[in-house]
Amino acid sequence: MNGADSLCDTLLANDVNVCFANPGTSEMHFVAALDRKPQMRCVLGLFEGVVTGAADGYARMADKPAATLLHCGPGLANALANLHNARRARTPMVNIVGDHASYHLVHDAPLTSDIESLAWPMSHWVKRTLTPGGLAADAAEACHAAMALPGVATLILPADTAWGEVDPQAQPVRADPVRQPFVDPQAIRAAAQALRSGRRTRLLLGGRALRADALAVAGRIAAATGARLLAPMMNGRIERGAGRVPIERVPYPIDPSLAALADIQCLVTVGASVPVAFFAYPGKPGRLIPDDAEVVAMGEPGDDLMAALEALADELGAKAEPVFAPLNAAESVADGPLTVDNLNAVLAQSIPNNAIVCDETISSGRQFFAATQGAPQHDYLQLTGGAIGIGLPLAAGAAIACPDRKVLLLQADGSGMYTCQALWTQAREGLDVVTVIFSNRAYAILQGEMRNVGVNHFGDNARRMLDLDKPALDWVSLARGMGVEAARAETVAGFTALLRSALSAKGPFLIEAVL
Amino acid sequence: MNGADSLCDTLLANDVNVCFANPGTSEMHFVAALDRKPQMRCVLGLFEGVVTGAADGYARMADKPAATLLHCGPGLANALANLHNARRARTPMVNIVGDHASYHLVHDAPLTSDIESLAWPMSHWVKRTLTPGGLAADAAEACHAAMALPGVATLILPADTAWGEVDPQAQPVRADPVRQPFVDPQAIRAAAQALRSGRRTRLLLGGRALRADALAVAGRIAAATGARLLAPMMNGRIERGAGRVPIERVPYPIDPSLAALADIQCLVTVGASVPVAFFAYPGKPGRLIPDDAEVVAMGEPGDDLMAALEALADELGAKAEPVFAPLNAAESVADGPLTVDNLNAVLAQSIPNNAIVCDETISSGRQFFAATQGAPQHDYLQLTGGAIGIGLPLAAGAAIACPDRKVLLLQADGSGMYTCQALWTQAREGLDVVTVIFSNRAYAILQGEMRNVGVNHFGDNARRMLDLDKPALDWVSLARGMGVEAARAETVAGFTALLRSALSAKGPFLIEAVL
Repeated sequence: MNGADSLCDTLLANDVNVCFANPGTSEMHFVAALDRKPQMRCVLGLFEGVVTGAADGYARMADKPAATLLHCGPGLANALANLHNARRARTPMVNIVGDHASYHLVHDAPLTSDIESLAWPMSHWVKRTLTPGGLAADAAEACHAAMALPGVATLILPADTAWGEVDPQAQPVRADPVRQPFVDPQAIRAAAQALRSGRRTRLLLGGRALRADALAVAGRIAAATGARLLAPMMNGRIERGAGRVPIERVPYPIDPSLAALADIQCLVTVGASVPVAFFAYPGKPGRLIPDDAEVVAMGEPGDDLMAALEALADELGAKAEPVFAPLNAAESVADGPLTVDNLNAVLAQSIPNNAIVCDETISSGRQFFAATQGAPQHDYLQLTGGAIGIGLPLAAGAAIACPDRKVLLLQADGSGMYTCQALWTQAREGLDVVTVIFSNRAYAILQGEMRNVGVNHFGDNARRMLDLDKPALDWVSLARGMGVEAARAETVAGFTALLRSALSAKGPFLIEAVL
Repeated sequence: MNGADSLCDTLLANDVNVCFANPGTSEMHFVAALDRKPQMRCVLGLFEGVVTGAADGYARMADKPAATLLHCGPGLANALANLHNARRARTPMVNIVGDHASYHLVHDAPLTSDIESLAWPMSHWVKRTLTPGGLAADAAEACHAAMALPGVATLILPADTAWGEVDPQAQPVRADPVRQPFVDPQAIRAAAQALRSGRRTRLLLGGRALRADALAVAGRIAAATGARLLAPMMNGRIERGAGRVPIERVPYPIDPSLAALADIQCLVTVGASVPVAFFAYPGKPGRLIPDDAEVVAMGEPGDDLMAALEALADELGAKAEPVFAPLNAAESVADGPLTVDNLNAVLAQSIPNNAIVCDETISSGRQFFAATQGAPQHDYLQLTGGAIGIGLPLAAGAAIACPDRKVLLLQADGSGMYTCQALWTQAREGLDVVTVIFSNRAYAILQGEMRNVGVNHFGDNARRMLDLDKPALDWVSLARGMGVEAARAETVAGFTALLRSALSAKGPFLIEAVL
């Protein structure tokens, strides 16, 4: 038994049984060990951003980490953008990053790089294991960190640590059980006081507090106190739809976000941070709530937020039923050329019950969220860290976690290109994902931001950096090139028919919605 | 005039007039400034690995840096793998990485990350400019560092540094001229002594010493002393072909590389490092030359290697003509299904005169180099740091640097997928690149490495991580999806006809060679 075997055994002993992988030579012993463990499901991504984006989608839905297998510093580098998103979503993940054998580093061979320096900015936990015998304990610590923080744990695996022999009697190590800390009762009492004060108070819910059960408790608190519920701009997962407690989100554009929060006198945060502007804009504030608003922090992401909300509801005597979202009435959308508006309207009418909706529409899908408050129940997964290129892999990972649920991915075209290789993984694994490409052939959000900085007439250079035409991307060919069936729609009727057919079938399908 | 204008002016004043870009919101003022400078050619990449790979290819051929425009930590992260290759190639490059306004960092907005920690492992020079007035001097320093080191310079541009006003009278700053240090005369004398000693001596040439003029001098030294010329495993650019002095390369696989260097008694390095194994293998050495071989280091990459070689030739009185490679005789390749062998044979016969050949074939193209020693003269550009995904962007950048030369790209299929988005840039810019995909539908090199670690029967997990079939990638569809004409070949005759037609036309074309 070698170190790599011991690592696999410990991952499996901690219920980590999916490994999203893009291996290289320094990981061959780990690949060989995985090959001896058929109970580990290995899913290949043809680019590392696919690997980590999929691991993120998987963990958001499975509520447990997947492992990833990445090759040295450059492989990790390719994975970092989606690790950044996972870190912001507080997604549990266990990255295994192969490196040269320890004694080989001195030679500064071509692939050598400072892996720790690359890993730390996008990880909550980083460790390099230097002895084969230490792998089981370190892997268990990584699994624990991923679940407890929760967050991104990165374990660096030198090749000689993987291939070195370990005591054949050594057992896999089970991670310490995760005990979510209780939220400080004083914070709960402070929150109750704020909510009873008569001031305009909002309850900002993040992470675990955006699941249906927690939202139901928050809904009781809202009903009892008149406080409004608010979610951060970007969230790992919201359970929503008809019959669940609806929640608004902080808007993304700077002016609407300031307007939406302008009247807050008190903000109670539950596993969330005070909302800030996504970017700085000259002359506009960075903190989105008024300077004189009181903030009561009731729990961090890793805390037992459900218990905290229940304690708060008890403290407030909030027993009345919350207000649940009513089911949207069916509305027909007039035929005509596709636009952002009618595309969003058709999509809002089409969410299958119990679907998983992944949204990386950037600027084009902003209406969708409000319009689907009363849609059939679904999970809603977002881009969390602003590192575009999450949608296609996120949907793939979610589909692997929940093979019996339909995944509907709303994907901006510009962002989709960053990790388009995920379509191949969708095809290979036969994943039940319907991808809708919002094909506006531009970095539309940046065109808006250019106007925000006062540029209304674009010259050649600006157009060449913000338009995606000349040539137009042909997403149908791209999808077919990676084995995913696809079709293009330019009208409401055409899109509606394609979407209905794709949603009623099983397996991956891509619709290029030309806007 | 704002900081961004001042940055553009200084780049242009230092002859940096191509900017490979993938911008985001924090760079809007820089984009607006670029829009006011039509003399700067802005080239959009739909993924940051395209941006840096293209900047690498451009600079290898233009002998001056391009600028890149990258968006915050995650944008830089996506760019790092090809920065790693550029760093190993010692390619001059000036990265401009946008960041939040300085005063916004305290809010830890979603896109915030530790850019310095990400940049350093793949840069030779990193600086963050905190005042608009400091940008011109810092940009000039970056340009100087890129040329002088030579290498990768990364300038971090906070949004408020870009949008802040500068003195309208301020002038662009010209970088200090680059003066290549002379190589220590004592090292040159030591090299001469070694070469005259009668021991088996090799001259290992790297970087600038692999251009035709330097190779001609090295060839005189070889002719006078019997020393053999050797190039590192991986090189930024070699000028080669019939009528030039040929040079062998250190082989990649561990056993052939050890065998090739086993008899060395003395190694004279000229702008190169002692060859080491690309990876460590249990029980095999990391340093590829015998332990008792003497090493004489004659110059570092930034030194005046041409002058050093001339001084060495003078010291040795090496005046005789070197042996130039004779022109290969035309050989016809028998028709039949395409194989690695006959594909390489056809390619070796087909290099147009004065072409630029980019090679990211990994395992399948190993015969090509030896077979093309006597091909028509061409530049040969390689993957330098082992971070796969360089080929398609490298070819694009080389084509932009040399619009009058044909670029022939030999591209492995697995590696090609990492930065396949570069095809779109080829199409948009109308680049004269013929891409040949070596479509073996596997990570073939890893299948070999698995056998190296003793695994000869692959189970499901190994197959799922090392095969690229199920589904097979359809490169013709992928290319067409990004606007590049393409066709598939499965026979020698079919491939030969396609290649001939593609090479005789202008503009991008992709041939999927099915192996």
